[in-house]
Amino acid sequence: MSIHSVKRSQCHLAWDNSIPPVLHVSSGDTISFDCLDASNGQITPSSTPSTLATLTISSLDQVNGPVHVASARPGDTLRVDVLDVQVAEWGWSALIPGFGLLADEYPAPALKIWSLLHSGEEGEEGYAWFDEERGIRIPLRPFAGEMGVAPGKEGAHSTIPPYATGGNVDTKHLTKGSTLYLPVEVEGALFSIGDGHAAQGDGEVCGTAIETPMKVTVRLTVIKDKPYVKTPHFTSRNAHPSGEEFYTTTGVDSDIREAARAAVRHMIEFLGAEYGLTKPDAYILCSVAGDLRMHEVVDMPNYVIGFMLPKSIFTKAKA
Amino acid sequence: MSIHSVKRSQCHLAWDNSIPPVLHVSSGDTISFDCLDASNGQITPSSTPSTLATLTISSLDQVNGPVHVASARPGDTLRVDVLDVQVAEWGWSALIPGFGLLADEYPAPALKIWSLLHSGEEGEEGYAWFDEERGIRIPLRPFAGEMGVAPGKEGAHSTIPPYATGGNVDTKHLTKGSTLYLPVEVEGALFSIGDGHAAQGDGEVCGTAIETPMKVTVRLTVIKDKPYVKTPHFTSRNAHPSGEEFYTTTGVDSDIREAARAAVRHMIEFLGAEYGLTKPDAYILCSVAGDLRMHEVVDMPNYVIGFMLPKSIFTKAKA
Repeated sequence: MSIHSVKRSQCHLAWDNSIPPVLHVSSGDTISFDCLDASNGQITPSSTPSTLATLTISSLDQVNGPVHVASARPGDTLRVDVLDVQVAEWGWSALIPGFGLLADEYPAPALKIWSLLHSGEEGEEGYAWFDEERGIRIPLRPFAGEMGVAPGKEGAHSTIPPYATGGNVDTKHLTKGSTLYLPVEVEGALFSIGDGHAAQGDGEVCGTAIETPMKVTVRLTVIKDKPYVKTPHFTSRNAHPSGEEFYTTTGVDSDIREAARAAVRHMIEFLGAEYGLTKPDAYILCSVAGDLRMHEVVDMPNYVIGFMLPKSIFTKAKA
Repeated sequence: MSIHSVKRSQCHLAWDNSIPPVLHVSSGDTISFDCLDASNGQITPSSTPSTLATLTISSLDQVNGPVHVASARPGDTLRVDVLDVQVAEWGWSALIPGFGLLADEYPAPALKIWSLLHSGEEGEEGYAWFDEERGIRIPLRPFAGEMGVAPGKEGAHSTIPPYATGGNVDTKHLTKGSTLYLPVEVEGALFSIGDGHAAQGDGEVCGTAIETPMKVTVRLTVIKDKPYVKTPHFTSRNAHPSGEEFYTTTGVDSDIREAARAAVRHMIEFLGAEYGLTKPDAYILCSVAGDLRMHEVVDMPNYVIGFMLPKSIFTKAKA
């Protein structure tokens, strides 16, 4: 197993299975990516709200890659273990006109620059002051907003919405130690990553997280026995202080209720495949034990709804 | 401050401000309610799926009360402190045809009877076996699915959907130790409670929780300085092992996206009123620190979406 690296400049602006790989790796290899923030470097620590009016929108949400994983074939699953995420010393959040859950109510641009210097010692969370005078601070729980593989469907697909193959899933739970499963649609999988977030809540409601340049390291492994993975699945562990572990299925859809339905349906399929539960039993289990959460509600036209099942209910754990 | 009690028989089947109170109390009083399960006693430990076909639907989801709280006036807030919730020794979950997030895919009735005998020692969670052979068990985190006050609008409103005044909010976080805030619309508030749940996930996706008879004790207090409470707000603490505390605002709407928008909008109003944040600042804070969760997606026609903000971000806590 080898360690590889992908540079900042090795990025692209669409999910498109015709983009040539920047790297070929074997299943089980580890890759470190150096990624600019989602503005593709257009926003800097000295930017002001007026900078937002001059953004080149077509340059946003670049992703680094693609990485070709030998032995990955359509119908396989790509397992992505998030080994490390390091953010820069600064980040930004913005209200971008036309973007966000309350876009119609917030027409004016706004920009906040964050210091991310309080990065935390070993075993201790870092934080960013939102308002030091008022004593409000945000724990840093960094993750990549974009992780995905090339779609089987030809053509250039925007990196702004997420898809069944992942991409801009903007899911806060995908921090260091989590594992993401993606359905492979093309030979080599063609994995890419980007959109560093130092912190975000479920929903990313204003349309941005604490956006930041990021160095992220993942291990990519080809899995042949999870045919039920049709949209992103993941395992994650709640941040300090809980440490509770979850197995999550998702629905990705332009209709929010259909996305929720798909997330539950996918969990029922998982419980059947891995635990041998009948569908009605699995549906009841979901109702009494699992949580519907809105991971991303702003990357139009697609929502990502997650159904999170605590692993502690399985006393003979398999998940 | 006095301790009162409401009996099983003191219940009603609609939110209707013309229903006479069964009890008059003062602000700050404590009341214990003895409540049948949401089937109003129609389902018993010996029921079978065929029982579901014979249910009298118009008798379901009864609530105990109403309780008139002196000094409560329209525009006030009723603070409900959940002091204790005790479940019976058994419970049930069901797939009821026509009900649930995947109702169209599950036309057949199903019924599961649970033993709730493993109720847990002090400081230890109880649990119910879902499948002892497979080692799957559900932690018991009991709460009342229905807590609400009478609407100002005249007439008999079904107890199945939740409203801005609460009711069937089916929100799993309202366990012992939580505090619910409800907007008062009529003199005396007219509080009622019911629908014992021994465990449920966010969403209550199949349409039922672990339904059970329950004894629940709450303290009711009239609050005059929270005019921003227009739908249920609550404080809660994650169950063992996390203990993380949250302040939550909700949206209650027949459109799921509008419910999410209302939940965020209400949090922005709360952050302005309690912390003096500007609306754009509060909106950004919500995006980086708070979580959109789907508390209830099955009590048609209304969804309850919660926006949960961890209280730990406030190092000079007020919430």
